[in-house]
This record gives sequence, structure tokens and C-alpha cells, in this order.
Amino acid sequence: MNHPAALSNGTTVSEKRKLLSNIRERRAKAGKLVAGVAAACTSDTFKAPVSQSRPPCILKQATRHLKNPGLVSLGGGLPSSEYFPFYECTFRVPIPPHFSESDAISPDSATGQTITIGKYDVQAGISECDLSISLNYGQATGSPPLIRFITEHTELVYNPPYADWQVCPTVGSTGALEQTIRMFCDRERGDSILTEEYSFSTALETLVPQGIKPFGIQMDDQGPIPESLDEMLSSWDEKAREARKPHLLYTVPSGQNPTGVTQSLERRRCIYALCQKHDMYIVEDEPYYFLQMPPYQAKQGSDQQAPEDIESFLAGLIPSYLTLDVDGRVLRMDSFSKVLVPGSRVGWITASAQVVERFIRHAEVANQGPSGISQIMLWKLLDETWGHEGYLTWLIDLKNNYTKRRDALLAACDEFLPKTVVSWTPPTTGMFLWLKLDYSQHPEYPSRPIEDIEGEIFEQAVQNGVLCARGSWFRTEPSTPASGMFFRATFASASAKAMGIAIQRLSQAIRESYRIE
Amino acid sequence: MNHPAALSNGTTVSEKRKLLSNIRERRAKAGKLVAGVAAACTSDTFKAPVSQSRPPCILKQATRHLKNPGLVSLGGGLPSSEYFPFYECTFRVPIPPHFSESDAISPDSATGQTITIGKYDVQAGISECDLSISLNYGQATGSPPLIRFITEHTELVYNPPYADWQVCPTVGSTGALEQTIRMFCDRERGDSILTEEYSFSTALETLVPQGIKPFGIQMDDQGPIPESLDEMLSSWDEKAREARKPHLLYTVPSGQNPTGVTQSLERRRCIYALCQKHDMYIVEDEPYYFLQMPPYQAKQGSDQQAPEDIESFLAGLIPSYLTLDVDGRVLRMDSFSKVLVPGSRVGWITASAQVVERFIRHAEVANQGPSGISQIMLWKLLDETWGHEGYLTWLIDLKNNYTKRRDALLAACDEFLPKTVVSWTPPTTGMFLWLKLDYSQHPEYPSRPIEDIEGEIFEQAVQNGVLCARGSWFRTEPSTPASGMFFRATFASASAKAMGIAIQRLSQAIRESYRIE
Repeated sequence: MNHPAALSNGTTVSEKRKLLSNIRERRAKAGKLVAGVAAACTSDTFKAPVSQSRPPCILKQATRHLKNPGLVSLGGGLPSSEYFPFYECTFRVPIPPHFSESDAISPDSATGQTITIGKYDVQAGISECDLSISLNYGQATGSPPLIRFITEHTELVYNPPYADWQVCPTVGSTGALEQTIRMFCDRERGDSILTEEYSFSTALETLVPQGIKPFGIQMDDQGPIPESLDEMLSSWDEKAREARKPHLLYTVPSGQNPTGVTQSLERRRCIYALCQKHDMYIVEDEPYYFLQMPPYQAKQGSDQQAPEDIESFLAGLIPSYLTLDVDGRVLRMDSFSKVLVPGSRVGWITASAQVVERFIRHAEVANQGPSGISQIMLWKLLDETWGHEGYLTWLIDLKNNYTKRRDALLAACDEFLPKTVVSWTPPTTGMFLWLKLDYSQHPEYPSRPIEDIEGEIFEQAVQNGVLCARGSWFRTEPSTPASGMFFRATFASASAKAMGIAIQRLSQAIRESYRIE
Repeated sequence: MNHPAALSNGTTVSEKRKLLSNIRERRAKAGKLVAGVAAACTSDTFKAPVSQSRPPCILKQATRHLKNPGLVSLGGGLPSSEYFPFYECTFRVPIPPHFSESDAISPDSATGQTITIGKYDVQAGISECDLSISLNYGQATGSPPLIRFITEHTELVYNPPYADWQVCPTVGSTGALEQTIRMFCDRERGDSILTEEYSFSTALETLVPQGIKPFGIQMDDQGPIPESLDEMLSSWDEKAREARKPHLLYTVPSGQNPTGVTQSLERRRCIYALCQKHDMYIVEDEPYYFLQMPPYQAKQGSDQQAPEDIESFLAGLIPSYLTLDVDGRVLRMDSFSKVLVPGSRVGWITASAQVVERFIRHAEVANQGPSGISQIMLWKLLDETWGHEGYLTWLIDLKNNYTKRRDALLAACDEFLPKTVVSWTPPTTGMFLWLKLDYSQHPEYPSRPIEDIEGEIFEQAVQNGVLCARGSWFRTEPSTPASGMFFRATFASASAKAMGIAIQRLSQAIRESYRIE
């Protein structure tokens, strides 16, 4: 990895080790977690003492009386768990570090194990959560055992440098972004937001119907260019832009979608300082954060590294904006979609208590938090079964798998694409490769528009049997002239062999359009 | 049940029987359902031919190419299922009609069974859905096999009298209501909505922050009074109300929360006609619909009926507004929360195609639909394991259980409450009993305000060891004078014995405040 072992924020390997053992001690001292149906709590309950600043577990208005011994509740319309027709649930999962599918599916008890979730495990004293709780109504703040795990994980990985940060589970980052935009932006005020000039299309589709105009910052191979950001904000002309000067930056700092670009620590510091200068709030969307890979080495592939320990893995990750956030101006969105299972529809946000409180009030009416069965399934695996060490081992293994996939795609590009017209920067994070086609070398340049040629190559590629994403689908300001011609390719799902065939087919479509052999 | 066997819309027992067998035939004819990861489809695929009016399964922009044989996708960033660390999942569930908890938990294979969901069951040809699909991204329209079941169920129970109705799974009715209000109402336009004068507090909390003003229709023991609705709309004064004339009615027609009131068929017809007259759109929120009970008979409890067949059960249900909806002016919200498990966070809406299309566009950015694991868990149980008949048998059994619970609470009220000051209408649907206290008989009437006395009784009841909900929590227009003093008690969760004790404690608190023996 290309990051120093001792980061600016003082997060070294030995400090990560200390944090891990602190979490173990803290839990042992706190004793068994007692949290029944719809128990309310916040991150504060589970943070290291130094970050505790607010009273823990504020029960809501009426449910606070439920603590009275002997009280009979005729209050809330919560169904009785005896009418839940699910009595036991099991999941077959891998035992770290045996993460290959065949290992876990095999009946060998050394590589795979079966997790059992009973209906009344809490009552029976065999677990801290069960079906009778998870299948009933919960709080929009999420299930207490899952909040504990997420809080500890957040502390372990990001360790925000202020006391009153909070986490809150979400129904995934798509929904979290929608809520966040509604919280911070107002159509009637003419609000706008800044983002990369090529941005995640679903994010753009979230903003536009809310009447919030997105503006794109020019990018280089490290992400948004600070000078472009500064220039835009310093010379903002409300009339010309038909929008108020933005107060919010939406960015995907690691393995950006669609460009695959990762912001270096230096770039992040620069952008953060500019956000301080212009008083911008930062929303960082980091689904690919843990897929940070070693640099690609052409011909020989990436270094086959010695097995990595979890402390070095953690210390080697580029710091989150959250880690640099001395002002409380960052909301980070994490997701289990890219590192475990998208179908759980569970992620979480981390931000200052003030912001999270407003987010929760919104979640209470927008969705009441994520599915209870998703939450217990994740908690059982991540916390009760794997623990922090097991989960981090999983993330290392996953990153290694994605590194192999990336290398296979890049090797195919090296071999088959016409380098006279196609160029790319090998991605160091995520799932995406961004291919740039040299418009000026096209035989029909400049008479035929970029979009036309891009469309032709896309259609021909589909005919040849390969589907890529068109660069123009991701343009933040589609009404302005395009800065270049791009295609996005993912190495997330196809096999190495299929990727080789796919790149040959794409190459053929490009050669045809450019009329080269 | 007090409803005629032949309803106005011609839904008789034999017609329900025919519909059930039609569904079986239709499925047999359609053959195996083929629907992979994030497969897109709508209700039309699964309706009886007569209701088919739009082409089925319109795949989205880019994913439509995925059907090309041999195509390699480097397009979407969907993770490969080999990295999902869940390989098999089982659920222990009851076999109809053995629905008691002890039956299903027992190892006896005649009363309980284990459902198994493998990772690659579809590939292996042993199921129509599996973990590799459910744990990946899905469509906001929900999982095709679940949509099929919900479509058939909706047709079986409500059978809307127009062709282009659609269903769409939701993350529960709380979130569905929020989306619906955003779809139909606009703060900037000064929009308002009509609802019952006492309404579900979470619904009110959803409207108010959006800047939508709720107004309450006077109620009697059949729900909103038509004359009150007509009078309000006919004489609407925008200035005095500080709001535009409402174009939306939000109502809970069956077992209303908090009053427990159920609108008769005649009342529904009357309200629907008035909505036609004033061109109002109707949002009906029906979580308690299937908990329609026989009338309560004091002293002897309810009739111990002979086992009911599912066709009679269906034909005996009071028709939904959806069933009366000849104009396409109804959006119905259904939920699995009160009849299966609230923690699944799954419900669905039914409305015209035009409205559902807009709802889906919103869901795509608000939540991407419900959790995949919740959807497969419900589908495996309801469809693949129980089938329509099994699920309807479950609903009959559940309704019978709630009837016993209601009867126990009502018997306790008959026995312990001071009838000189407390009155109530025995509910025929749902989970709630609404107790009215005669303010005019209170020793401090009229000098001491209703809210004060209500608060005193509430606090004393909590001290005595019983929690009820205060009527004032549910007031649609809290700034207007209260029309009476109320408490809401639920029979959903406490045991018969505990409810008896609870009502004695409440009675004690009332007697103390009213200074009666």
C-alpha cells in the first residue's frame, strides 16, 4: 500500500491494535446487552468513555414508562410475538479465513458453520437478540446490538476527531442521500450542490426531481480539482447559474462512480480546507472504501503480498473525510451493499449528533429504519459470529479478490485496446475502470458530436456482445459541452475469461468507429 | 359476520372459489417463473387476462440488453454473488391449520416444517427464487415472485373494478404514506388534507413537517360523518383555514387507529360519492383489514362459530374502497405488519397504473424497495409453502385469536369500569378500544380543562401500573377545542389476565379523579 504507517491523525498500527482491545474490554465491563422490543438507544452507549457527552438511550415519550416494574401496557399497537409464524432461522456462513464459496458450502465444520436464531433466545439467555425482537417493530435508530457493532467499527476505522458523533442505520445509501438532501437543501431557496463533473447517475436522479441543481467540479486522476472548486465558489454568479451558491459538496472520494478515481490524502486535505473557506458541508458516499488495492503493475500483475494483518490493513486505508473533520461538517455514508449483500438494504451514516438527530426524526416517518430480519442477520454474522477481527479479515480477503479481478480487466485492456485512441488510469479502489477515447483522433472529428460517436460505439459493442456504461449517462451538467468521450467498465461480476472476451469485443467496436486495424 | 353473502359488487362465495381456481390454472399455464437478479416486472404479468392492458416486464434502459444471448456485462456495478457470505437459510414455520406457537415449535413434522432457501436454487431448478437473487440488488418494484403473489391476493380479495391497477411493494405503510403525500401534495401550493378528527399520530407527524395541514372530519361510531365532510368541503374558506381546499382524504376505514371504528359498506359508499362530488383522491390505510370480527355479545362472549371456509371469510369482508373505485381515485395501503411480522418492513400499495408508476419512480431513489431477505422470507412462506389457501387460513385463525383478545378486554371493561362516566362501542375490527369519559360529570367541570383531567388520569394510571394512550395524542387539529375526553387501549399484546388487572387499575385512576366509589 502507498500510505504511510503513521498517518497525520496519528492512527498507527499499534493504535488500531489498542482500539481493538479497548472495545473488547469495554464490552466485558458493560456486561450483557439488555434491549427488548423497539428499545431506543444511540451510539453514545457504545463509544469509548472519552466520546460520551449525551445521556444514553433516551426512551420516547410513552415507552419510557415501560420500564416500570409490573406495568401492563395497553399503550402501543405492537402485535404479540406469539403471532409471528417464524420460530427459528438458520444461516450457513463461512468461518474466517475460509471465505471461498466452496469452503463454506462444504459440510466440513472447519470451514463453514451454521448460525441459529431462535424466537426467544434473549429470554433463554443464549443471545442478545432474537426473532421475537427483530420481527417486531423497531426504532428508526436501528437495533441496539447492531448500533453497538457499527459504532465500534466506525471508531475503529474512522475515529472522528470530535466527541458528539453518532451513527444511524439507513435503508442503504440511496435512501440516505435522499433524506440528507431533503434535510440540507430547499428548492424554494434555489439551492444547488457541487459534485464531480461525472457523478453517480442515481445520485443525480435523486437531486433533480427535488429541484436541487447539481454543478460539476472538473476532475483529474485524483478527483475534483481544488482550483476548479475554489474558482467556482469564489466567482459564483447566482443569476448566470440560476441557483444559490452551493453549501453542500457530494463526493465519492474512493473509487468514484463512474471514474474509478481515488482522492489522495493530500487532495482530501485540500478539498476540506476549501470547504472550510467557503463554509461547505461535505456528504461523502463511500460504498467502495474497503476495496482499496495495491497499485497495478502492468505485465506481472500486482505484488502477491504476504498475508496482511488487520491492524496494517486499517492503518493503510486513506483517511475518510470523517477522520479529518475537526468542524463537524461531514456526513459519511457507509453501506453493506458492496462488501456483504446489497439485498439487505442496510447501511449507516456517521455525522454530528445535531445532524443525526434530524436524520432520525425523518427516518421515523420515511421508513422506520431497515428491515429487522436484515439487521439481525448482519448482526449475528458480523458481531456474534465473526467479531470485528473476523469482519476485517473478510474485508481484506474481499479486497484481494477485487484486486485480482481488476488486474484481469487491466491485463485485457493492455492486450486488446488500441492505445493510440484509448487511455485509462488503473484504479486503486472500487469496481470501475474509466476508459477515455480520444475524440480529436476520430475520422469524423470535429463535425460529428461526441454523443453521436459514443452512441455508435455503444450500440456496436452491444451487437458484438458486450455491455458497458456510456460516459454521458453520468454527466452532472448534461446541457454543457462534453469534456471528452468515456466508457465505464466494471470488474465486479464477470469472470477473468469473460472480461477478456468482452474487452476484445469492445475493442472491435472502437476500431470500427475509428477505422483502425 | 354481519355482511351479506352477496355483495353489491357481486362478490359471492362461489365467485371467490372461481377466482382461486383461476389463479391455479393461470399459473399452471404460465409455467415456471423465470426472473433473475433485479428482474423488472409489473402486476400485469400476473393478472387475469381481462385486466391486461400494458406490455409486461419493461426492462430498464441498459438492463434490457442483458437478454441478448452470450452478452458479457461490464455495465452495472452489481457484486458477484460468490461474495455473499450467506449460503443457505432456513425458517421453521407452522403447517396450516396448526398455527399455535407450541405446535410449530414442536419437532412433530405434522404441525411444523422447515423452509430451506439455498443460494443457487433457481439454477438447480428447485425454486423460483434464491439467495443469489434476493441478496443482490433488486428493482424498486420488488421481487417478481412476491409481486405475483401480492397481485393474485389483491385480485382475490379486492378485485378493483378497472383494468389498469397495479401493486407495488413498499417499505411499510409509514414510508408509503410519506411517499404518497409527497406525490400528491405541495407545501408551496398551500395544500391540505382531510382525515378523521382523531387520527394515527405517526400519519400526522408525516404530514406536518411537509407543511401539509391536516383537517379533521367529525366522527360517529361508523367513522367520518358524511354531512361533516360535505359541509367542510362545500363551505371551504381558504383564508380562514389558511389552506387550499383539500383534494386528498386520508382514512383508516377498518378498525381505525385510535378509535377502533369500522366504516360500514353504506358509509363507504356515501363517502366515496362525496369524494366524487368534490373530486377528492382517497388514500386508505388498511393494516387491520383482515381482523374483522363477529359482533361482541356481552356476558357470553362472541359466538363460537363453526370452522369458517376461506370463501365465506373473503365474501364476508366489508369491501375496500378499492373495490368500490370506478374512477381510479383510490390508493390502498396494505401491510404485513399487523398480520405477519412488522419487522419485515414490507407492505404494498394498489392504485391505478399512472399513480403506481410515479410511486415507483420515487421509490427508486427513496429506498430501492424493501429488503431482499424480507421479501424472499415472506414469499417462501406465503406462496411456495402455504399458498393462497394457507395464508387465508392463517388470517382466519389470527382474526379468531384477536376476537378472543377483544372479548377478554371488553369483559374486563364491563366488569370494572364505572359505566356512569365511561362509555365505549365494542370494536368489530382491529386492535383498539376507544374509551370515552364524560367530561360533564367530572367534579371540576367546566373550570378545569379536558387536557388537564386527561393528564391527571393518565399519570395516575401509570402510577397504578397501566399504560394507555391519551386521546389528545391523536387530535388532528390540536389547536381547536377538544370534543371529548378519550383513552385508547389495545388488546394486541397483553394476556387476558393482565388485561383484567390493567382495566382494574385504569378504573381506579378514573374513579379517583371523578371521586366515585
